[in-house]
Amino acid sequence: MARIVQKFGGTSVGDIDRIKNVARRVKAEVDRGNEVAVVVSAMSGVTNQLVDYCTQVSPMHDAREYDAVVSTGEQVTSGLLSIALQELGVEARSWAGWQIPFLTDGAHSKARILEIKGGEIDDRLKKGQVAVVAGFQGIGPDNRITTLGRGGSDTTAVALAAALNADRCDIYTDVDGVYTTDPRIVPSAKKLDKITYEEMLEMASLGAKVLQTRSVEMAMKHKVRVQVLSSFSEAPGTLVCDEDEIVEKELVSGIAYSRDEAKVTLLGVEDQPGIAAGIFGPLAEANINVDMIVQNASEDGTTDVTFTTGRADLEKALKVVKDNMKVPYRTINTDKGVVKVSVIGVGMRSHAGVAQTMFKALADKNINIHIISTSEIKVSVLISEDYTELALRSLHTAYGLDAA
Amino acid sequence: MARIVQKFGGTSVGDIDRIKNVARRVKAEVDRGNEVAVVVSAMSGVTNQLVDYCTQVSPMHDAREYDAVVSTGEQVTSGLLSIALQELGVEARSWAGWQIPFLTDGAHSKARILEIKGGEIDDRLKKGQVAVVAGFQGIGPDNRITTLGRGGSDTTAVALAAALNADRCDIYTDVDGVYTTDPRIVPSAKKLDKITYEEMLEMASLGAKVLQTRSVEMAMKHKVRVQVLSSFSEAPGTLVCDEDEIVEKELVSGIAYSRDEAKVTLLGVEDQPGIAAGIFGPLAEANINVDMIVQNASEDGTTDVTFTTGRADLEKALKVVKDNMKVPYRTINTDKGVVKVSVIGVGMRSHAGVAQTMFKALADKNINIHIISTSEIKVSVLISEDYTELALRSLHTAYGLDAA
Repeated sequence: MARIVQKFGGTSVGDIDRIKNVARRVKAEVDRGNEVAVVVSAMSGVTNQLVDYCTQVSPMHDAREYDAVVSTGEQVTSGLLSIALQELGVEARSWAGWQIPFLTDGAHSKARILEIKGGEIDDRLKKGQVAVVAGFQGIGPDNRITTLGRGGSDTTAVALAAALNADRCDIYTDVDGVYTTDPRIVPSAKKLDKITYEEMLEMASLGAKVLQTRSVEMAMKHKVRVQVLSSFSEAPGTLVCDEDEIVEKELVSGIAYSRDEAKVTLLGVEDQPGIAAGIFGPLAEANINVDMIVQNASEDGTTDVTFTTGRADLEKALKVVKDNMKVPYRTINTDKGVVKVSVIGVGMRSHAGVAQTMFKALADKNINIHIISTSEIKVSVLISEDYTELALRSLHTAYGLDAA
Repeated sequence: MARIVQKFGGTSVGDIDRIKNVARRVKAEVDRGNEVAVVVSAMSGVTNQLVDYCTQVSPMHDAREYDAVVSTGEQVTSGLLSIALQELGVEARSWAGWQIPFLTDGAHSKARILEIKGGEIDDRLKKGQVAVVAGFQGIGPDNRITTLGRGGSDTTAVALAAALNADRCDIYTDVDGVYTTDPRIVPSAKKLDKITYEEMLEMASLGAKVLQTRSVEMAMKHKVRVQVLSSFSEAPGTLVCDEDEIVEKELVSGIAYSRDEAKVTLLGVEDQPGIAAGIFGPLAEANINVDMIVQNASEDGTTDVTFTTGRADLEKALKVVKDNMKVPYRTINTDKGVVKVSVIGVGMRSHAGVAQTMFKALADKNINIHIISTSEIKVSVLISEDYTELALRSLHTAYGLDAA
């Protein structure tokens, strides 16, 4: 017997038939003799509708009232799924965040979890009752409903799995697992059986939108084994787990990409100590996220500094740089037509030559690299967006990831 | 300075523009220097949608889960109205039933109010904050959400007004008050300035669907002054109040009618002691509401018994009577084509001849009376449905109620 937390996203509970389908999935787990807690999102479209209502009433709405409004979507789904389970003869009850209680801080609309008082749910799971928990929500120190931010139901599920000492947290979604790269671009992409938390974090933050970054961080911290799988198929998914659980580590597990990149280059910056701090200090103060940074060697007493930021932040970043009189430069260039491609794998910690394989594969296709950055388990390059598909396919082959 | 509870129904908060309109009505009350608590229903259509979801999942759904699902409609409106009030510069916050808390018994989906812990709301009203309370809901002894049954928001408002010692409870609806009779049938019907609780109860239960019967009973019990008025006009409404507050009592305040009537006649019932108990006992046991009852004088050792019930209950009532072998009868007739017309007025307590005016007015129009029943403040007759409009117009004139 195992204890499983299952999480079903908005698409999986998008209408009444799908809710009934989810009930059958839950029952199957119960029939295998397992204890089951389920976390649900709002039916697809509902949260957007509620957010839109708040914005229509006032674009600058009170986050506490926003939370009271948008948290209802999950409350509805939890009640309906409980009814659907009862209809199948499975004992079940719904839990709103405040009933558990699921204690958070008071940062309304982006609250952080403090503690989950899972005692009563624990007791009921042992007696065979299924707990159906409304995701994405908790209760703050002011006794008012809080929400965890968009996609927060993944975090609810992982946190609940940690609090209940669950053996596994199954995240049901509309894809059937984590792939070596985007299968829409590289048809030979393979589904991974297992991936480490560290790799998944890199994949998630780089645009493989399968799991919320925050939920992966939480899973890593509490060693919660997370399985990503499809609610529309019976195929096994991908297990996100500790490195120890993966016997045969691949050199490279996957290749991620992100189109949400913009490049800024300052040409002819006076080359003197403190210029990096002078440029990036004001950007940090303006809450602009800077990702890759390159400073070229200088020859004539000036240097060129290039950095990347999210496309939505580009205009704001430009204004900050231009308003900043402390670092003189000759001219400034920007480029939105870039993409970041990353090869990821915990295996590269103990192997040399991983980056070289990447550079050679790209060079063979005449793809110019603008910027390179590396971490312990990742090598990222910025290239022209036009080459996205070609680069992904070439790298996928170069690292031997193509399906047989 | 007065303390006012305002209640806005589903049509009044039917879309975002209407919610903003309600916020202006609330602000006007605040600007008059009053303390204001507001009770809101779900946006029109929302509750029906949620009920429909529950029924689609399972026609025999768990009432506790039903309550968790359908109570969200009011939660959404309370949050949105709070945002709208803040947008107008009015300090406001939403309250779900469980936050107040609004304690009820455990009869899910038709809970009764036990106690309202209004202390915190009371404090905040004194400081000038508007409380926006989600109607129709409370919290049961099991720490789960309960609902008060359809139309329960009127009851929420009156109970809250009693708990907060409010000077008045204003029920905003889509009609602008209580009329002497249905203005769609009798164009000369007048809006009443005041009506007693007792009269309003008779009007409400007889089909003048302005206020929930239960909320009027509660208002009468706690002496809450209730004003019925339109959220779409500025005209003063009708005040439902104690008899003492009405100086000039009308003989007849209004004329109500109900089409939801069906007549059952048992002919040739053996005339012996206990036949009434023999007939109506089984009907009561089957939970069938019987309204008017007439037993004719017998001549040949048999008698005829006639009674009325709601149209929806007719088939069930017939089955009960036919299955009941203890009271023999010759034959049974039914008639769904009947209507009950009632003249209502606390003034008739001290005046004779009120019923006679009714009988004469109907006789003058050749309208045949099937059954008569009377109470202290009401005379009701059952007539053919075909004569509904003629009877209402004739009686309205006969009692001098026509607008000048």
